[in-house]
Amino acid sequence: MGTKGEKNRKQIISIADNLFYENGFEHTSFTDIADAAGIARGNFYYYFKTKDDILSAVLDKRRSDISLMLELWEQEYPEPKALLKNYILMLVRSQNNVKSFGCPLGSLCLELNRLHHVLQTDASNMFDLFQVWLEKQFSAIGQAKDANFLAMHLIGRCQGISVLSSASSSEEYLKREVKLLEQWINEL
Amino acid sequence: MGTKGEKNRKQIISIADNLFYENGFEHTSFTDIADAAGIARGNFYYYFKTKDDILSAVLDKRRSDISLMLELWEQEYPEPKALLKNYILMLVRSQNNVKSFGCPLGSLCLELNRLHHVLQTDASNMFDLFQVWLEKQFSAIGQAKDANFLAMHLIGRCQGISVLSSASSSEEYLKREVKLLEQWINEL
Repeated sequence: MGTKGEKNRKQIISIADNLFYENGFEHTSFTDIADAAGIARGNFYYYFKTKDDILSAVLDKRRSDISLMLELWEQEYPEPKALLKNYILMLVRSQNNVKSFGCPLGSLCLELNRLHHVLQTDASNMFDLFQVWLEKQFSAIGQAKDANFLAMHLIGRCQGISVLSSASSSEEYLKREVKLLEQWINEL
Repeated sequence: MGTKGEKNRKQIISIADNLFYENGFEHTSFTDIADAAGIARGNFYYYFKTKDDILSAVLDKRRSDISLMLELWEQEYPEPKALLKNYILMLVRSQNNVKSFGCPLGSLCLELNRLHHVLQTDASNMFDLFQVWLEKQFSAIGQAKDANFLAMHLIGRCQGISVLSSASSSEEYLKREVKLLEQWINEL
């Protein structure tokens, strides 16, 4: 695939990623993606044969984006507690999207589980990236023994905040929950 | 509508409720529901004209089921802390479903939000029933001032546990989270 081909492929993946998040995987058709990418159907097949092929590429992209983001955070903040708080603050940074569409990981995993989709495990692997990284931070603050559960607990708390922020109209809820979690990190 | 008509209508709603939960609203077609109900398409139109009509009836049924359940709980357990714990224990009682399909309320609300569905607010009203009821219990244990936030906090925690139980394969996570929440209620 030439440079232009690579660029087109990346663009399709990025467009599909957004559509899956904002409209749901099921609700987004192969044609929706081709149309949004502005690539003629005949040419589109050169890049992807099925919607599942696109999903697989979207999951690859998300996993590599998550890994890159976590590496960058570690360069930016050397303190493990600051890193844990930075994870929590994702909720604040993306609160408009969270309110409209929930968490991109949680909502996709829920949807693929219900569809008994073959890529279900590939999707939940996105959580594993955060899980392993959070465990590392909890271990670094002397919580090695309980790091696994603390990491799951924190991911679950953030998932709950995402779902309820999306279902409720309260402006205060998200802010207050984030504050509670930051306080919890401080006290660990 | 005669007695038989009423019975058929109720059966359709109940079947649709399950299909929406297990396969998702979007993934379930009008025809899927008619087929699962075993009612010929021509007769089916006598009961419902569109999938949205069915969704509306499903939401009515869920709201009335929730109200009835909460009333029954209050008859069964006079203690507000026991009632709060009984709310939490829904996660344990329905853990097999939660692991496969997430929370029936949370997952439907997320889906309808993303579809910008006209019945989105009707769906989030299901949460309001729990919210008001939980506030009443928190008020009864001397937390009137903070009852609103405590109720949202508890609903959010349970939503998070549902999402992560469904995305992860851990057997221990749900049990441990439920224990943490019970402990939190005890200490209030």
